[in-house]
Amino acid sequence: MGKALIIGCGGVASVAIHKCCQNSEVFTEIMIASRTKSKCDALKEKLKNSKTIIHTAQVDADNVEELIELINGFKPDVVLNLALPYQDLSIMDACLATKTSYVDTANYEPLDTAKFEYKWQWAYRERFREAGITALLGSGFDPGVTSVFSAYALKHEFDEIHYIDILDANAGDHGYPFATNFNPEINIREVTANGSYWENGKWVETEPMEIKRVYNFPEIGEKDMYLLHHEELESLALNIKGIKRIRFFMTFGQSYLTHLKCLENVGMTSIEPIEFDGKMIVPLQFLKAVLPDPASLGPRTVGKTNIGCIFRGIKDGKEKTYYLYNVCDHQECYREVGSQAISYTTGVPAMIGTMLVMNGTWAKPGVYNIEEFDPDPFMDALNKWGLPWKESFHPDLVD
Amino acid sequence: MGKALIIGCGGVASVAIHKCCQNSEVFTEIMIASRTKSKCDALKEKLKNSKTIIHTAQVDADNVEELIELINGFKPDVVLNLALPYQDLSIMDACLATKTSYVDTANYEPLDTAKFEYKWQWAYRERFREAGITALLGSGFDPGVTSVFSAYALKHEFDEIHYIDILDANAGDHGYPFATNFNPEINIREVTANGSYWENGKWVETEPMEIKRVYNFPEIGEKDMYLLHHEELESLALNIKGIKRIRFFMTFGQSYLTHLKCLENVGMTSIEPIEFDGKMIVPLQFLKAVLPDPASLGPRTVGKTNIGCIFRGIKDGKEKTYYLYNVCDHQECYREVGSQAISYTTGVPAMIGTMLVMNGTWAKPGVYNIEEFDPDPFMDALNKWGLPWKESFHPDLVD
Repeated sequence: MGKALIIGCGGVASVAIHKCCQNSEVFTEIMIASRTKSKCDALKEKLKNSKTIIHTAQVDADNVEELIELINGFKPDVVLNLALPYQDLSIMDACLATKTSYVDTANYEPLDTAKFEYKWQWAYRERFREAGITALLGSGFDPGVTSVFSAYALKHEFDEIHYIDILDANAGDHGYPFATNFNPEINIREVTANGSYWENGKWVETEPMEIKRVYNFPEIGEKDMYLLHHEELESLALNIKGIKRIRFFMTFGQSYLTHLKCLENVGMTSIEPIEFDGKMIVPLQFLKAVLPDPASLGPRTVGKTNIGCIFRGIKDGKEKTYYLYNVCDHQECYREVGSQAISYTTGVPAMIGTMLVMNGTWAKPGVYNIEEFDPDPFMDALNKWGLPWKESFHPDLVD
Repeated sequence: MGKALIIGCGGVASVAIHKCCQNSEVFTEIMIASRTKSKCDALKEKLKNSKTIIHTAQVDADNVEELIELINGFKPDVVLNLALPYQDLSIMDACLATKTSYVDTANYEPLDTAKFEYKWQWAYRERFREAGITALLGSGFDPGVTSVFSAYALKHEFDEIHYIDILDANAGDHGYPFATNFNPEINIREVTANGSYWENGKWVETEPMEIKRVYNFPEIGEKDMYLLHHEELESLALNIKGIKRIRFFMTFGQSYLTHLKCLENVGMTSIEPIEFDGKMIVPLQFLKAVLPDPASLGPRTVGKTNIGCIFRGIKDGKEKTYYLYNVCDHQECYREVGSQAISYTTGVPAMIGTMLVMNGTWAKPGVYNIEEFDPDPFMDALNKWGLPWKESFHPDLVD
């Protein structure tokens, strides 16, 4: 039915591409393009039994001219950007130039600041509208599924939503005393950055890891979780009218935090190079070399993730509470697509969002966050494509 | 009165040399020799107002011929070995060849094993006796002062000693979350090695850090301490006749141990090289480069050490308990000789032992551990030269 160009070939891209190939009635032809073509070729080889026709290409996603040439050659219906967040704008520029729709999973972040915000991508609204093409922002799990959950709750379960708590729990155990699921630099930045949440029309900033709660997660049990800033807070605060407070919590084990703190204390997480044996070496990069390769964690990670949203608001004049969540098993994901649940829960929604833009269900000109579309077809697709959701009308609340 | 050749120019040597220069009636002339002559010259410059005549020389302490040449040129009464324990035997060989007495602070350790024992040095007994020269082994604090304390207790306070607990507490605070007082490799080996103690005529081995006790130290307060193997246990078990049990405990703070454990868990204390940027790098060596230089801790370390021995035994047919200890203040040491208490408490006894061998008080041909000599002149000298001892007849006991 359609053609998608997928840029990037890391863990999340690998899941999304597996899913496109399972869904070959929709994805009749795809092209996988990344800086390292051999990785794309290796993935193509793995998926050679799929009915989806797979092409591969080398591309520098920072280079708009190269991207334009690639798009003009392949003529995809949609470009799915699973490269780094630093490359969102160059890929959007290439989409504009070629009048091709665009999907991503994480908002733009300038390389030289630690600040991620939607403002840069929202600035493309008028141009995308005029070009008659769609940009779907944040089609992963969080942002992505959590945002669709919010739109669904507002459509079917509430007249007004006043409070949203997004809860992201990973109870996976890889058996190492310490390892990171992805690049330790990004992991460490997340934990050491200030937190923030939206309340009564403004942002409230917290110290890093200042707000801790214990929550008893369905199918996982009791976990420590900490309030962090997270990108979907920014768009949901605008798009869920009448919202009074929205917060994001992520679980971290005490052992993980202790190891991180010790490594930070001795200077091993520093990005300032030190002289060693006549050479300048960045401690964090050396640490990364000592730690297990995140890609090696897949086969050995057991346990589940539980990510979802607890809503409180008004329905038919009465107060109501509602919890929507997905539980995902690391080992089941690994058996199905060769990746653990962290990549799986982001890669599946990326395929679904791309499908909905490509088949016209979500095609409207402009730049949109995912909660601005009708959530129902996405919610149906989650059940069909491996991320079934569950609901509870009497969940525990977070203080 | 006499001439001493001091080999080594590190932290402990610097203290011992300061002390020799304070004691210039005994040490009329000294020679400082080390691999790096510029360090010896810098120390000489600092001490230029002393009445002691100071010479300096470059020497490779592994090279017996070079040592013999140096000794024959300077003709010292005693050689004080403050180089590495790996060099004890080459220096003893040079002393034998030149018929010069010998003093050290730590027993010989082959470079290729982690095992330190007296057997190699005890094998020189007959040859030293025949040459008519003295080798005094272990004239630091522990071994050294703790051994003299034991001999003193047996001479004056007991008819029989049954139990000795050696307690080594460092309550110094350098203000860093984690740093090591000396080479982190040796520090880490000490904590990760099995412990052992002597009981009823045989060695009992423990897991690393298996035996923990809390002790309320005079002038320091309550500290966690752990049973370790320590070299004076080996000679005291033989020389204190009738001993039933002898143990050694050292204090470590929980934060120090947590940092060490985390660094060990992630592989940063490993001595197996890993490939980094096309080069093989030993993680522990990189860690050492990231950590504060031990030499930089002196000016910023505050607090005290308390090292001593608790004895239990029989006097005049009755059970008796006796505690001998020294308390040393890091900042006072630094003001006096430019080193903190860890170096000070080893360097002062090294000077005292050398003095007693040189002035004939402790001159008897052969190889001896320090507790084999009359303790009284050493105990007097401790009071005179900066390490006054205290006693208690009703100390808390260790379980």
